[in-house]
Amino acid sequence: MNNEILELHHEHIGVLSIQSELPVKNGIDLAKAYTPGVAELSKLIEKHNELAREYTISGKLVAVISDGSAVLGLGNVGPQAGLPIVEGKSLLYKTFANVDAIPMAIDQVEIDAFVETIKNMSHSFAGIHLEDIQAPRCFEIEDKLKELLDIPVYHDDQEGTAIVVLAGLINAAKVSHRKLSDLKIVLNGVGASGVATAKLLAAAGVTHVTLVDKEGILTKSSAQLNPYQEHLLSLFNKRESGDLSEAIVDQDVFIGLSTGNLLTKEMIRTMNDNPIIFALANPVPEVTPEEAKEGGAKLIATGSSDYPNQVNNVLAFPGLFAGLLEAKAKFVDEKLQLHVAKTLADLVENPTEDYFIPNVFETRVVPAVKQSVVNFFN
Amino acid sequence: MNNEILELHHEHIGVLSIQSELPVKNGIDLAKAYTPGVAELSKLIEKHNELAREYTISGKLVAVISDGSAVLGLGNVGPQAGLPIVEGKSLLYKTFANVDAIPMAIDQVEIDAFVETIKNMSHSFAGIHLEDIQAPRCFEIEDKLKELLDIPVYHDDQEGTAIVVLAGLINAAKVSHRKLSDLKIVLNGVGASGVATAKLLAAAGVTHVTLVDKEGILTKSSAQLNPYQEHLLSLFNKRESGDLSEAIVDQDVFIGLSTGNLLTKEMIRTMNDNPIIFALANPVPEVTPEEAKEGGAKLIATGSSDYPNQVNNVLAFPGLFAGLLEAKAKFVDEKLQLHVAKTLADLVENPTEDYFIPNVFETRVVPAVKQSVVNFFN
Repeated sequence: MNNEILELHHEHIGVLSIQSELPVKNGIDLAKAYTPGVAELSKLIEKHNELAREYTISGKLVAVISDGSAVLGLGNVGPQAGLPIVEGKSLLYKTFANVDAIPMAIDQVEIDAFVETIKNMSHSFAGIHLEDIQAPRCFEIEDKLKELLDIPVYHDDQEGTAIVVLAGLINAAKVSHRKLSDLKIVLNGVGASGVATAKLLAAAGVTHVTLVDKEGILTKSSAQLNPYQEHLLSLFNKRESGDLSEAIVDQDVFIGLSTGNLLTKEMIRTMNDNPIIFALANPVPEVTPEEAKEGGAKLIATGSSDYPNQVNNVLAFPGLFAGLLEAKAKFVDEKLQLHVAKTLADLVENPTEDYFIPNVFETRVVPAVKQSVVNFFN
Repeated sequence: MNNEILELHHEHIGVLSIQSELPVKNGIDLAKAYTPGVAELSKLIEKHNELAREYTISGKLVAVISDGSAVLGLGNVGPQAGLPIVEGKSLLYKTFANVDAIPMAIDQVEIDAFVETIKNMSHSFAGIHLEDIQAPRCFEIEDKLKELLDIPVYHDDQEGTAIVVLAGLINAAKVSHRKLSDLKIVLNGVGASGVATAKLLAAAGVTHVTLVDKEGILTKSSAQLNPYQEHLLSLFNKRESGDLSEAIVDQDVFIGLSTGNLLTKEMIRTMNDNPIIFALANPVPEVTPEEAKEGGAKLIATGSSDYPNQVNNVLAFPGLFAGLLEAKAKFVDEKLQLHVAKTLADLVENPTEDYFIPNVFETRVVPAVKQSVVNFFN
């Protein structure tokens, strides 16, 4: 692999470090930063536990946690190999939103033990960011944590992706003068991000969503349907069984959250006029923008920075958590996700085919998302 | 309480923050710091798990963990109120030895659940520093963690205190021309630090140690004797039962790791000539240096910076862990503790009554301790 990248991650043993916010140069400093000064603080917090989050790092530190079970396109690589991902995410938190985040690998123990591990250490943190955890395991973990903890719990592969996809779709509909709720959508890939995106689309008023996985259209009788997918089916108009090429006929939108190279230009030609193609698989998209254009599409988004309209979660999570922390919010629900998606969409005042999703390096994105979250809770 | 101290800990929400070691200003940086760069790194670590500690923060980050069950002189204040202590310790790691450490509160769950919580997240860290956990719970937790983990596990209240006490005692013996192994010692307070100190004294060749707690001299028939204390009794010469005033007669050394105001000048007068008094309770010592002097003592150490010869764990843990990390060591055993204690003692070339323990602000201490740990493992 690229030696420069290896060297960058090796030089400081990772890409993060801990920084002191208090100088300790003599006994007087020491007495304030550590004992006996902190003894007073401990006594105060003993009486008022909630003050720990005012006077210690636990009030600002986000734990970015993975078990490495569903890393990018790589699959289950194990907890250690998930660390570069969560450390990278923590770096982005700091860089984009000055949010203090720490990467953590947790072993792939059974769900209850995984949840208990996080619960037992949750007083150390102001929020939990889950990352790259396999579906359907991730759904149960997140639900249980939300039930147990009094700090925000957020799964970036779910909520983060859903927010940015919806933001893009709002603007793609606007460019093509269609109502979001009228769109007929095929959503291909019903893992963590697919389930969360479908849920958010339903919350946004969309009713025509056909869920497709590698076995074809999902129906109540599909094999290995998990309870989360089953619930989704009840939200949308029923479709007969069939494969992707059948599902996509006469549809307005393709959203791919699956794997590369499974949508062809021929399939796109069977869609309604001016189809919207979100080919979000990484690193290889479901269809290349070039081929999508040959199929007649003009409104195209990918997960790659090499093309216009990149669906990148970094548009969402740094500002989102910065806002949650500032608002001292305790949850991330669908209403908040809808609110943030609209904020992101509105950042593009005059969306066009080549620019209907903000770019990750637009400096206005994070402050706008953060402020919209703060407003949501006030 | 002191408003300035509150303000210092409030201004930045705690005294630590996370720092980026890699700039991310454009797509090229992003590709190196996060995807797709880290995907390559994940693949590498998937094949060679041990490389996670070369290329991610997990190779340098120490978790400083408390359940808040035995905080300073305050007792069981709960996990949140333990946070200022472990955050202060983390700050000292950074300040004194450039060691990256993160404070964590873990709930007071049963011992096995506590151990499992740490084990499940141990791939995130290069070492575990336990702090302010009640005895005898702390002994079992540390033993089990040492058994399960392949990173160093260290309990500062035990090993840290033991190292610095022994260092001081080596030099106090030297000043008064006595052999360490000949000293008759009363050790008052047989909790976490008392047990660890007694163990290390035994490892250093001391055989005359009388263990005393608030019920008096510890014997095999003492009520509520825990297995760790029972083991200690087998290491030393037997003593009859009695209270502290009886135990101390004709002894050379008093080591107090207990509570304030329980040793009198009258008791000191019953000790052997030139008694050595380590009155280490904080904030109120077992006997004030003034009163100890009235009792005839000249070799006096306390836990306070207001007097000469402060027994302060900050002499040990920052350099110790810096050395462990540099040596990629996997354990802290008694031989290492002896080695570090001797290093600390040797730093005072010509010990006197007023200076037989190094001062915490001597800049040579941490590098010397660190180097001695590195040498130990090479």
